[in-house]
Amino acid sequence: MIATDWLATRPGETEQALPDRQDAHLVFIGAIRTPFATRDQCPRQGDAESGPECRVEIDPLWHAALAGIEGFAHLDLLYWMHRARRDLVTQTPRGGEPLGTFALRSPVRPNPIALSRVALLGVEPGALIVRGLDCLDGTPLLDIKPNRCQHSPAVPEARHATA
Amino acid sequence: MIATDWLATRPGETEQALPDRQDAHLVFIGAIRTPFATRDQCPRQGDAESGPECRVEIDPLWHAALAGIEGFAHLDLLYWMHRARRDLVTQTPRGGEPLGTFALRSPVRPNPIALSRVALLGVEPGALIVRGLDCLDGTPLLDIKPNRCQHSPAVPEARHATA
Repeated sequence: MIATDWLATRPGETEQALPDRQDAHLVFIGAIRTPFATRDQCPRQGDAESGPECRVEIDPLWHAALAGIEGFAHLDLLYWMHRARRDLVTQTPRGGEPLGTFALRSPVRPNPIALSRVALLGVEPGALIVRGLDCLDGTPLLDIKPNRCQHSPAVPEARHATA
Repeated sequence: MIATDWLATRPGETEQALPDRQDAHLVFIGAIRTPFATRDQCPRQGDAESGPECRVEIDPLWHAALAGIEGFAHLDLLYWMHRARRDLVTQTPRGGEPLGTFALRSPVRPNPIALSRVALLGVEPGALIVRGLDCLDGTPLLDIKPNRCQHSPAVPEARHATA
């Protein structure tokens, strides 16, 4: 099997160079460990019910920020797709017609921030065990948010006031 | 009424200075117009069913990236909470006990990226009309993703292949 060239521009795709400015900066707060070593191995979408267990490792600077997270059954993880190009405004999905980048959940976008809703399976010192990710092993972590809205029967909502 | 001092550190909160490094950079792709001029006016959470209509204005550089977005009933918007401090690892919600930052959806976090699931009401040239935001007027926009998963009866899924 010939590996897909994930960085090639396909017919129907439109390039738009990123502007030469930096409006804000990010700090990576940890790293995500998954069984997916290459882009070809990554599933198209994570599966919070039957996907593999993954480990989210948080930098010691932010260990205290995990306090209380065990009270939530589902989390929103934001992470940085560090291998994705940022310069396509239209894209041609495999087997599809060209669409605007904002009508797709492709990793390729001006700010390659991914969002996954995952099931929280366990909490270890400085790490979370979750299910539902589709990203490369070693992907940098940006944020963890509790999911208050759905599929969270185990969540003791009454205990957690909102900020 | 005395306005809340949103930048004060409250009892039970823990400060942790952001590390002196920039791991990645963001470009603002537009701005969000809401009826909320001050933090005191912002609701605690957006309401995609009964909240006010808001206007998401996209920079001309990325207008082509909106192609096909009209096919989705709901979107995930990512935006930058430009007024939030980034240095608290535990926080004390009003009327609550201290919790870790990652167990809260407070704007205060090391990477103050907000995520809102909104209803798409209309598409104009270079702008979207949406319902479900809770952010300040003028908030910088980072990303728009179609919501494929839920509450989208109007979405012609079959027409949109995945990337």
